[in-house]
Amino acid sequence: MATPQRLTDPEIQTALGELSGWSLQGNKLHRQFKFGNFNQAFGFMTRLALVAETLNHHPEWSNVYNRVTIDLTTHDAGGITELDVKFATKANSFAD
Amino acid sequence: MATPQRLTDPEIQTALGELSGWSLQGNKLHRQFKFGNFNQAFGFMTRLALVAETLNHHPEWSNVYNRVTIDLTTHDAGGITELDVKFATKANSFAD
Amino acid sequence: MATPQRLTDPEIQTALGELSGWSLQGNKLHRQFKFGNFNQAFGFMTRLALVAETLNHHPEWSNVYNRVTIDLTTHDAGGITELDVKFATKANSFAD
Amino acid sequence: MATPQRLTDPEIQTALGELSGWSLQGNKLHRQFKFGNFNQAFGFMTRLALVAETLNHHPEWSNVYNRVTIDLTTHDAGGITELDVKFATKANSFAD
Repeated sequence: MATPQRLTDPEIQTALGELSGWSLQGNKLHRQFKFGNFNQAFGFMTRLALVAETLNHHPEWSNVYNRVTIDLTTHDAGGITELDVKFATKANSFAD
Repeated sequence: MATPQRLTDPEIQTALGELSGWSLQGNKLHRQFKFGNFNQAFGFMTRLALVAETLNHHPEWSNVYNRVTIDLTTHDAGGITELDVKFATKANSFAD
Repeated sequence: MATPQRLTDPEIQTALGELSGWSLQGNKLHRQFKFGNFNQAFGFMTRLALVAETLNHHPEWSNVYNRVTIDLTTHDAGGITELDVKFATKANSFAD
Repeated sequence: MATPQRLTDPEIQTALGELSGWSLQGNKLHRQFKFGNFNQAFGFMTRLALVAETLNHHPEWSNVYNRVTIDLTTHDAGGITELDVKFATKANSFAD
């Protein structure tokens, strides 16, 4: 898979417009998810881990009990790309 | 944790009345779950794996792509117990 | 990804020669893995779930406590293919 | 389960003496694990997630591809307890 191109600032803003709960922090797509308990949080993480391997695109993420914090960027492209938007979209769909 | 007592047949029937989709097969609580894809199925399994370790009560289960089949019994009690009912109830709540 | 071609019987035998613990059962590659406990068994399953999604090739598998039984075939090809051999090889490497 | 008692500084030092790779950072037990790839890292995390639920004691942890960073403290006790030492010991045994 070729590395996707870095999105422009307007493209990032457009993407964020459709990514409920995500913001731009330190040039990365950022969101914190809050669940009812660890079980839900880790089930969510497992589903995203499967996506990460399929896309060969891995998040920076942390977990404390029922919270999962995710930061997304594409290192090879030096910024945010469609891969990050795709990953964030999946995360939102799994958290619903 | 003491091993719970085997449920009587009427107790099992009462439990099944509240366990949508479960039936009695070969003296075990049995249900097949069908999901949209493997990702959903394995997220479900991971959440149940956490429950299994917490209860120290493990299912007999199999998975083929989007399907997860579960059979529950309590070997130490020689039959179905409250632990199986508890596990089945969790499974149903995670599958919703 | 194109569906890989079905392996011939001699090709399957050659593959089995390098797949410790695997045999041919019902026209599928078959092996049972035995671990020390459920924790090890489910860690193994999670690593294989990631492989399954990456290869878009999913096993028929079952788990009872510390045992994981796997059957592999490629439905689209009507038999065993290189994908099954690759999956079985991964499983063995994770179980070591 | 009663909340375990906070360990004294000498008790923490003794524990660290047997916890290869762990140090004290910000009053928490801290270690970074480095694996060969994401698959290994997430398999490790899944095994620890099962431990976390069993102990009802959850880590602060983050993951970036093949690295897993863990910080441990027992909030209810206001410091490091035997639960943290037990969790760290498990983590080391899974990483070997």
